[in-house]
Amino acid sequence: MGAKIRLGILGGGGDSLIGVLHRVASSMYDQFQIVGGVFNPIWEENIGFVEKIGLPTNRVYIDFDTLIEEELKLPEEERMQVVSILTPNFLHFPMAKKLLENGFNVICEKPMTTTFEEAKILESTLQKSNAVFAVTYTYTGYPMIRQMREMIANGDIGKVQKIDAQYYQGWINPIIHDKEKRANTWRLDPEKGGISCCIGDIGTHAFDMIEYVTQLRVEKVLADLNYVYSDNKMDVDGTVLLHCTNNVKGLIRTSQIATGEENSFSVNIYGEKAGLKWQQENPNHLYLLEDGQPLRVLKPGHVYNSELSLEGTKLPPGHPEGIFDSMGNIYKGVAKAIRNEPYNHGEFPTMTDGVRGMNFIERAVESHQKGNVWINID
Amino acid sequence: MGAKIRLGILGGGGDSLIGVLHRVASSMYDQFQIVGGVFNPIWEENIGFVEKIGLPTNRVYIDFDTLIEEELKLPEEERMQVVSILTPNFLHFPMAKKLLENGFNVICEKPMTTTFEEAKILESTLQKSNAVFAVTYTYTGYPMIRQMREMIANGDIGKVQKIDAQYYQGWINPIIHDKEKRANTWRLDPEKGGISCCIGDIGTHAFDMIEYVTQLRVEKVLADLNYVYSDNKMDVDGTVLLHCTNNVKGLIRTSQIATGEENSFSVNIYGEKAGLKWQQENPNHLYLLEDGQPLRVLKPGHVYNSELSLEGTKLPPGHPEGIFDSMGNIYKGVAKAIRNEPYNHGEFPTMTDGVRGMNFIERAVESHQKGNVWINID
Amino acid sequence: MGAKIRLGILGGGGDSLIGVLHRVASSMYDQFQIVGGVFNPIWEENIGFVEKIGLPTNRVYIDFDTLIEEELKLPEEERMQVVSILTPNFLHFPMAKKLLENGFNVICEKPMTTTFEEAKILESTLQKSNAVFAVTYTYTGYPMIRQMREMIANGDIGKVQKIDAQYYQGWINPIIHDKEKRANTWRLDPEKGGISCCIGDIGTHAFDMIEYVTQLRVEKVLADLNYVYSDNKMDVDGTVLLHCTNNVKGLIRTSQIATGEENSFSVNIYGEKAGLKWQQENPNHLYLLEDGQPLRVLKPGHVYNSELSLEGTKLPPGHPEGIFDSMGNIYKGVAKAIRNEPYNHGEFPTMTDGVRGMNFIERAVESHQKGNVWINID
Amino acid sequence: MGAKIRLGILGGGGDSLIGVLHRVASSMYDQFQIVGGVFNPIWEENIGFVEKIGLPTNRVYIDFDTLIEEELKLPEEERMQVVSILTPNFLHFPMAKKLLENGFNVICEKPMTTTFEEAKILESTLQKSNAVFAVTYTYTGYPMIRQMREMIANGDIGKVQKIDAQYYQGWINPIIHDKEKRANTWRLDPEKGGISCCIGDIGTHAFDMIEYVTQLRVEKVLADLNYVYSDNKMDVDGTVLLHCTNNVKGLIRTSQIATGEENSFSVNIYGEKAGLKWQQENPNHLYLLEDGQPLRVLKPGHVYNSELSLEGTKLPPGHPEGIFDSMGNIYKGVAKAIRNEPYNHGEFPTMTDGVRGMNFIERAVESHQKGNVWINID
Repeated sequence: MGAKIRLGILGGGGDSLIGVLHRVASSMYDQFQIVGGVFNPIWEENIGFVEKIGLPTNRVYIDFDTLIEEELKLPEEERMQVVSILTPNFLHFPMAKKLLENGFNVICEKPMTTTFEEAKILESTLQKSNAVFAVTYTYTGYPMIRQMREMIANGDIGKVQKIDAQYYQGWINPIIHDKEKRANTWRLDPEKGGISCCIGDIGTHAFDMIEYVTQLRVEKVLADLNYVYSDNKMDVDGTVLLHCTNNVKGLIRTSQIATGEENSFSVNIYGEKAGLKWQQENPNHLYLLEDGQPLRVLKPGHVYNSELSLEGTKLPPGHPEGIFDSMGNIYKGVAKAIRNEPYNHGEFPTMTDGVRGMNFIERAVESHQKGNVWINID
Repeated sequence: MGAKIRLGILGGGGDSLIGVLHRVASSMYDQFQIVGGVFNPIWEENIGFVEKIGLPTNRVYIDFDTLIEEELKLPEEERMQVVSILTPNFLHFPMAKKLLENGFNVICEKPMTTTFEEAKILESTLQKSNAVFAVTYTYTGYPMIRQMREMIANGDIGKVQKIDAQYYQGWINPIIHDKEKRANTWRLDPEKGGISCCIGDIGTHAFDMIEYVTQLRVEKVLADLNYVYSDNKMDVDGTVLLHCTNNVKGLIRTSQIATGEENSFSVNIYGEKAGLKWQQENPNHLYLLEDGQPLRVLKPGHVYNSELSLEGTKLPPGHPEGIFDSMGNIYKGVAKAIRNEPYNHGEFPTMTDGVRGMNFIERAVESHQKGNVWINID
Repeated sequence: MGAKIRLGILGGGGDSLIGVLHRVASSMYDQFQIVGGVFNPIWEENIGFVEKIGLPTNRVYIDFDTLIEEELKLPEEERMQVVSILTPNFLHFPMAKKLLENGFNVICEKPMTTTFEEAKILESTLQKSNAVFAVTYTYTGYPMIRQMREMIANGDIGKVQKIDAQYYQGWINPIIHDKEKRANTWRLDPEKGGISCCIGDIGTHAFDMIEYVTQLRVEKVLADLNYVYSDNKMDVDGTVLLHCTNNVKGLIRTSQIATGEENSFSVNIYGEKAGLKWQQENPNHLYLLEDGQPLRVLKPGHVYNSELSLEGTKLPPGHPEGIFDSMGNIYKGVAKAIRNEPYNHGEFPTMTDGVRGMNFIERAVESHQKGNVWINID
Repeated sequence: MGAKIRLGILGGGGDSLIGVLHRVASSMYDQFQIVGGVFNPIWEENIGFVEKIGLPTNRVYIDFDTLIEEELKLPEEERMQVVSILTPNFLHFPMAKKLLENGFNVICEKPMTTTFEEAKILESTLQKSNAVFAVTYTYTGYPMIRQMREMIANGDIGKVQKIDAQYYQGWINPIIHDKEKRANTWRLDPEKGGISCCIGDIGTHAFDMIEYVTQLRVEKVLADLNYVYSDNKMDVDGTVLLHCTNNVKGLIRTSQIATGEENSFSVNIYGEKAGLKWQQENPNHLYLLEDGQPLRVLKPGHVYNSELSLEGTKLPPGHPEGIFDSMGNIYKGVAKAIRNEPYNHGEFPTMTDGVRGMNFIERAVESHQKGNVWINID
């Protein structure tokens, strides 16, 4: 593998969640090293953030154009190899275009652009380059989604005959019913958010997922969207009927007024032989339904999974991937202690926990060996 | 926050899962930087591994004693601040002891030592130092476990009156029934694995968890272990009855012959007012049972959670923490593409996916605006 | 309450499941007594069936018209008070009409008629009578559906803003892809099954359920149905977009080619304050989703339920209603034994089970009293 | 089959839930006819109850001894063939004994007697008779429990190696912590409730279930019970370690202070090849865990189930058995309407529901046929 890939980042500073997500993800397989970027348009915040996260500051740039200019001056073996674009949506297109034109590989957050027109221009820009370009439809990275794709490709469910994808959230509910709030939310402002709110933000995930797992193409759509109020200019809910290749019918259901729903994204594909179902909020379970057979629940890391699925699993069966976060939280507590920052008892297990654990093991064995009698621990 | 904490690592090279877990966890909050260590006792593998994961090689040492010696020569502001011990169990004790005696902070995998005697020695070593020491009982880092602890401390379930923890696995099943295999598995060899297999490996997690969430102390134990075969010297299953402080009774149930179970660790605590239940394989759900009330399911990231719980959550509600892994898998695919390594279509979303997504959004809105009619995509 | 209501039954003989369902249901609250009917058009099977189920044979009639004629000769206090229609669909209309015209109360299986035209005629027939008329949209009888209706009426979820009902089955999948089979299935024959297969059979349940729980009215529909093959004349899958009163949008999704689905009927209603979700395959759980609150799971029989819901619950919380069936199975085993019919060990618990149980209780208490020691049972 | 079996009932009058359960169960397979009994020790309530449930009153007796005396005077072909004992526990033994001695078949609620001594006497009484005797350990009647038993007998999970049964309730929690209440609850009074509360009431179910599904015998027990307060004389919680035939170890966990638990009865059996898990609150799912295979979920009514299991299933897959209750509730509403008793809209579906349903079907098909356009319903 050799040296790590040199990664630059645009945006994602401050408390940005998408920033955390990309930084952690880039570290996961020991493949990338963040070498610089523009994390914030305000210089003080830009440099302050970099110091806060403990990165070298020498390749933090004042703005995007400077980044391009300065990086191009560096010898190729030092230059950023790939740049991740985490900025507001309207900047995705100009940044991606210029990066591609200057020979950088690109990882771009979704939506890739704000219009289809821009998207097609970007596509032709890419065709003229040798670059790698990725849009982060994140959910396609799940091991069980990869498994689903390969099982369908493999004919495990037969010819696909019915598609149903749901993406329900409730977050816009407290906004939409308040005249003031709905007038002042950027997501509901066509100037800032583009042509669509609900379809644009989450409908695309469902669309991409359907084409990803089935490898069919959606050929035409019929949509009924909901704007709820006449003074509201952006859809916050919508159902889209689909006609796909191979005469397959299906639908995408999206909502941001499904009150109380968090991130309820699910995809159900039925074929002539069996059906497959997956839910984002429980991403380790893939359900296989077959006539006359018990329901089967496939999970990551098992030998019955495809190579592509297994390559995306880092842990043995039974460990939800969130274990990384749990361990991460313990490291975070240790960091506070080392830095002499205040922390609560309970942020990481201490020596005392270790000592008590050893005592427990020995006393339990002693109890058994003495014929199942009570042994004191304390 | 300032510069990152300088972290050294002992063990965890090659394909070690525990190595991946600690590396990813250490990167999660932008707090630690791995500066060196001893990843493998064989020098070629040690240095090869470090090159593979793209770390600088200048502070990779030939063995543990050399690491201590050389690091001590460095000025304090360059020296490793904390060392993680991921080596085989019998090395935990001598390494941790020497590190503490030389002023290093320590993160130690569990079991902390191989005997209670060693554990007590280590404890007194720590008392003579100023070091921070953590044992990685990883499961206590979950946001909903922290929430459970704080709710109990807060009196939300009243005085605790019943404890039941389960840790069931099935992995030893194919080994235990094969005379050859069970004679040659290190976990079943008292020379290598210590006094206990099942209680030592997973029973301790349950024990620590009970004391963590309830803040009670187990006072005495009565155990019935199962060795299954008379020529087998280590327990592979066991039930331990508990008497805790405050006259609370409970039990720990552990098994490695619960065929088909993956990592079925759960903890149920019942109080005079309500009960709390948690399962490791579904770590984002905390169940609150109260007489005359609907069952409530608490999830991470919500305002109703405690500060300690929220501090351990990086994403908004509805995103299982595994999303990091999903994004990590996409970065992994991009890395292959950048390095010109072979990869399959489907390892990361491409420009085409981005273009189709933009097309979908615009066509869906068009269909709605034209009165819910079909619009072609392809 | 006084004497039981005299019930007549049309159809439901032989192995008819719908027959079992109505007989058991009619006995549940000690309210009805089956006094006669026409269970089968063939006289031998009709009378044979009545003997088999142990009913008196004196009011079993040769056909429907005879039933009407003979029952009308009886004094009113002996005459059937209500007649249940369980015959093939096309007979529902003429039978219901004649019954109403002759002063009988009617319980009619769904679909009530084969056309909307017939339905309107029947409605005006009813208006001219004093009769009670019920259509058995069975699912509205569930305690948690009643609870859902009352919570919505009560404003617990605020103004309804989004409706999504699903009814997915897979049973037609093995038929639809076989040219011979699909040509010879009565459900797919417009002459016998009416205008629609999927919408008619299960879509109506979803439609009725939506209007039942929300008390809104569907005002207009837009449907995309799927016939799969051009030689197939009846829909086997379909999505119907809904516009309801109060400007509420929603949809009904139905399928009989959702391979592997059994009877996956669910209804999700989202309001401005909260959402409610219910699934027929797990009918005792009603999910309440509210922003900033833990997910709540309501179950039957609890004090927090409405009177209407509680009236439909016969058992304390925690007992799935299926307990009746479990006890019914034990009675069935006992019946075989009493009749000296062959049966397997395990069809009902015997004296031996009773004796062992008493022994277990006494030995467990003895073990505890002697200080947690082993006591032999055998 | 011929005429129904003549059933007498002792106890179960008034609002008794166990009375409802036995009456409904006895009607389920058209096998039994209730001909009389003693439903209440007070004559007015006895006869009043029988009138209320619409049974003939001619064979309702003033007390148990009179029942025996009078029934014996009847010719054998009219005499009660079987008597169900639903009276308080201490009456089970004398009633069962006398019934058996007089040639009646018996169905007896659990616990069969109040002491092991009585149980053994009853057993020898039975041996001298030809009677059929059943104890209603109701849970063994579930189709998936029968399936579990047969799969284990069939070797599907290999030799059993680990048993774990749980029966957790929380109902005694509000009683046990109130000195007054716990002194005045009959279940906690050894004079009335026998030697044990928790083990006696629910522990026996777990014990019977284990022996039922595994066909192993428990050989010895070690128990740790909990009385919580020193003035409380009956156990309300307890763990019982088990050693069974074939050197199988296991445990039974019972509690009535597991606050918030309703009727959380589960049984997990692990064998050398696979494991089987079942939970009473979700009785239609049987989980099969096998190394290297997806988790499988078996459900009632499928072809893959055993004959014994299928015999206990009355409906097709996907219909929870509770559908009987749902239909029963609709019949209940109709009964009110026929009797001119007050009832709420929503207690049964009416003509209007039927008409709207037909309208919906026709409009949905029309929308599709006209090219997916909106069609008005109202």
